[in-house]
Amino acid sequence: MMSFNKKDFISINDLTASDIHHFIEIAKEFKKVSLKGIKKVPTLRGKTAINLFYEPSTRTRLSFEIAQKRLSADSLNIAVSQSSVIKGESLRDTILNLESMNPDVFVIRHGESGAAYFVSEVTKASVINAGDGTNEHPTQCLLDIMTVMEKKGDIKSLKVSVIGDICHSRVARSDIYGFAKLGAEICLYGPHSLLPKLIELKNVRIAESMEEALRHADVVIMLRIQKERASYYFIPSIEEYRNFFQLTPSLLSLSAKDVMILHPGPVNRDVEIAGSIIDDNKTHIFKQVENGVAIRMACLYILLSRQKN
Amino acid sequence: MMSFNKKDFISINDLTASDIHHFIEIAKEFKKVSLKGIKKVPTLRGKTAINLFYEPSTRTRLSFEIAQKRLSADSLNIAVSQSSVIKGESLRDTILNLESMNPDVFVIRHGESGAAYFVSEVTKASVINAGDGTNEHPTQCLLDIMTVMEKKGDIKSLKVSVIGDICHSRVARSDIYGFAKLGAEICLYGPHSLLPKLIELKNVRIAESMEEALRHADVVIMLRIQKERASYYFIPSIEEYRNFFQLTPSLLSLSAKDVMILHPGPVNRDVEIAGSIIDDNKTHIFKQVENGVAIRMACLYILLSRQKN
Amino acid sequence: MMSFNKKDFISINDLTASDIHHFIEIAKEFKKVSLKGIKKVPTLRGKTAINLFYEPSTRTRLSFEIAQKRLSADSLNIAVSQSSVIKGESLRDTILNLESMNPDVFVIRHGESGAAYFVSEVTKASVINAGDGTNEHPTQCLLDIMTVMEKKGDIKSLKVSVIGDICHSRVARSDIYGFAKLGAEICLYGPHSLLPKLIELKNVRIAESMEEALRHADVVIMLRIQKERASYYFIPSIEEYRNFFQLTPSLLSLSAKDVMILHPGPVNRDVEIAGSIIDDNKTHIFKQVENGVAIRMACLYILLSRQKN
Repeated sequence: MMSFNKKDFISINDLTASDIHHFIEIAKEFKKVSLKGIKKVPTLRGKTAINLFYEPSTRTRLSFEIAQKRLSADSLNIAVSQSSVIKGESLRDTILNLESMNPDVFVIRHGESGAAYFVSEVTKASVINAGDGTNEHPTQCLLDIMTVMEKKGDIKSLKVSVIGDICHSRVARSDIYGFAKLGAEICLYGPHSLLPKLIELKNVRIAESMEEALRHADVVIMLRIQKERASYYFIPSIEEYRNFFQLTPSLLSLSAKDVMILHPGPVNRDVEIAGSIIDDNKTHIFKQVENGVAIRMACLYILLSRQKN
Repeated sequence: MMSFNKKDFISINDLTASDIHHFIEIAKEFKKVSLKGIKKVPTLRGKTAINLFYEPSTRTRLSFEIAQKRLSADSLNIAVSQSSVIKGESLRDTILNLESMNPDVFVIRHGESGAAYFVSEVTKASVINAGDGTNEHPTQCLLDIMTVMEKKGDIKSLKVSVIGDICHSRVARSDIYGFAKLGAEICLYGPHSLLPKLIELKNVRIAESMEEALRHADVVIMLRIQKERASYYFIPSIEEYRNFFQLTPSLLSLSAKDVMILHPGPVNRDVEIAGSIIDDNKTHIFKQVENGVAIRMACLYILLSRQKN
Repeated sequence: MMSFNKKDFISINDLTASDIHHFIEIAKEFKKVSLKGIKKVPTLRGKTAINLFYEPSTRTRLSFEIAQKRLSADSLNIAVSQSSVIKGESLRDTILNLESMNPDVFVIRHGESGAAYFVSEVTKASVINAGDGTNEHPTQCLLDIMTVMEKKGDIKSLKVSVIGDICHSRVARSDIYGFAKLGAEICLYGPHSLLPKLIELKNVRIAESMEEALRHADVVIMLRIQKERASYYFIPSIEEYRNFFQLTPSLLSLSAKDVMILHPGPVNRDVEIAGSIIDDNKTHIFKQVENGVAIRMACLYILLSRQKN
């Protein structure tokens, strides 16, 4: 039976391969809830979830909020980017204050890498990392794995290519660790200035060209060029990026016939990915979003059920 | 029995006269819920409603949110005007993304005419138009009709005057269509630059003066001069507007003795309407707001019950 | 038995000493709810609470929202500071509009002293003052009294010192009235320009020095120097303030051995209070926050239960 009994979910590396499978099994069950006429179960009734977002976010916040409400938890939002009161206060003081209101879980997004871990050390409540700086976004990794598993069955030996601003992408980091843990062959590509200098995992390598990255790929994870983050400082221009790093139909034809394209969204159409591909049935962006709610329900359930013991 | 089985409520013209009566009958039942000690029914438990507001709104958003909560639906708010993440994304991509989270209904307000219809074509979820550009605001029309019916019984042959910026008012457009459909005689008046050039409905005409518009009127719908919209560009000055188009007690005395004054709110006191009149018992602004919650409960209920079949 | 049957809670002076004891007894019961696995009771199911905040606030708004949700009330938030629609409207019109949606209680924070009282006169719904200008913040006073009672048992004859910007602090005003009502000896200290000119209560006096204010103190209530309010205009500089009015470990040693330090939060570490003291077990800031939720549950319960009669 299940042995996951950590308080927090900060990094995909908090989970063993077996844990990942377990989380996804639970998520599959919760996915059914979202497809029923009455999309609600009493599982987390009387639990208090605080969504603490230091960066603007709509879709991730909404995904967690829907997950909480479908589990009957009480869901509270704090958009710190708009909150002048909290802004001047240290993160530690904010958390200690909010903890005094006896929440069961903090879902935190923060611009600084390591912030979610820091918070988890300060509070007795559970903490879920909803993205911390350029570090990790582990629920995104789980929903990506779930989406691939639904179509491919198993991750082992799949060729997974991650393309774009690897360095500054928390999605890339979590996905690389997560897919590697399950035995995928991972290939990275992007502008030289945005590639990691050092790869410590044995089944991860850097491609020399888009062609190499895409050839025989089973899964292609395209990253978002992020105006709001550092990506823009490291590329000469959007046109340049488009010319050399955009996923086009002809490049895509090099991949496996049943290649899956993932993207964390929101997509910059015709920047990192040709618009025509988005509406293609090889693209699984909307399945990713749907699975996101299920994964977040599973994470909330697993962490908060643990507390009862 | 009821035959309304459309997925969406975008325009008052989506409803027949008989549909309008049916919606209002249902709203009357739900109005009782808001007057009880426990203002809540389990009707829409487990349904997910997303309120997607591309324009700032407090009262309409709150009215829908209260309606959803009193029906036990899960209610989620997105204020796109504050959301940098969604701003750069196309409306279609935003809706497809949110739809992947399996909502049952979108309540959408948008600055562009036609946006709500566009959204309804993109999504399988129900869509309620909470105001799109200068086009329509159909729930406002229903609550206006409900308010008049409560006092007058029947709309047929009532003289209804709509005064102000007809051209840019979505309230005016929905009210004209709705009241005309039920057989009212409609009279429009306002600055020449803000009157429609062409009237295609047989029982709608344009008055030559405030006096003509108000004489024998049973219902006067005063429109809001909207700083945030185009009205201001078409009038020489607020003082000018006040002098020629303000509803004053002496003008009001030309109307029927039991005239009803409606206004969609918020009122610019002493601009389009003399402050003294607002607190008069001929003014029904607060009844309109109260009926607004009931009408929105009815709309949510009718659209979402349909889905079960 | 209980005799409190006022519609509103605007000032701590709305409560007799016996009322205060009663509110705190109820709060103690509700505090248990927040410590259970299922932090929810159906007490206020079907009640509608509108949190109307004209000033930015995160922690007080969150505290009320958590209180409402744990009581199963429907909780709605309006951040007027961000709402352009409501901004131009008079407070009276806003309240009359919102009241038409049949809320049971308004929780209001406003920059103008007297605003909460004004609102309570306009509406039939209950009103809880969550801070009005420099006037009062009565739920803060109750949670401070509750926190002291938990440790000291009784307030009578305790020496309570309030230090900082007395003049502009609604916390100070409510605390002075509340603690005085229960028989404490109150001592005020702060910059001359921020001290009241006239004290009308017999057991309240102004100290001549920090030393005098702190000597033998049983409870020290440190006030926040508020950038967003007037405090800054009345003091020469933060450094100056720090030198003369900061609570330091050596000053604290003059107080009673088991002195309790309270602060309404958020703390300006090393401005009004030395950082080292905050983490000291003499400081009860986080207990204050925890009791805040319980007090707000009690206030909501008492006011809204009254309505049933």
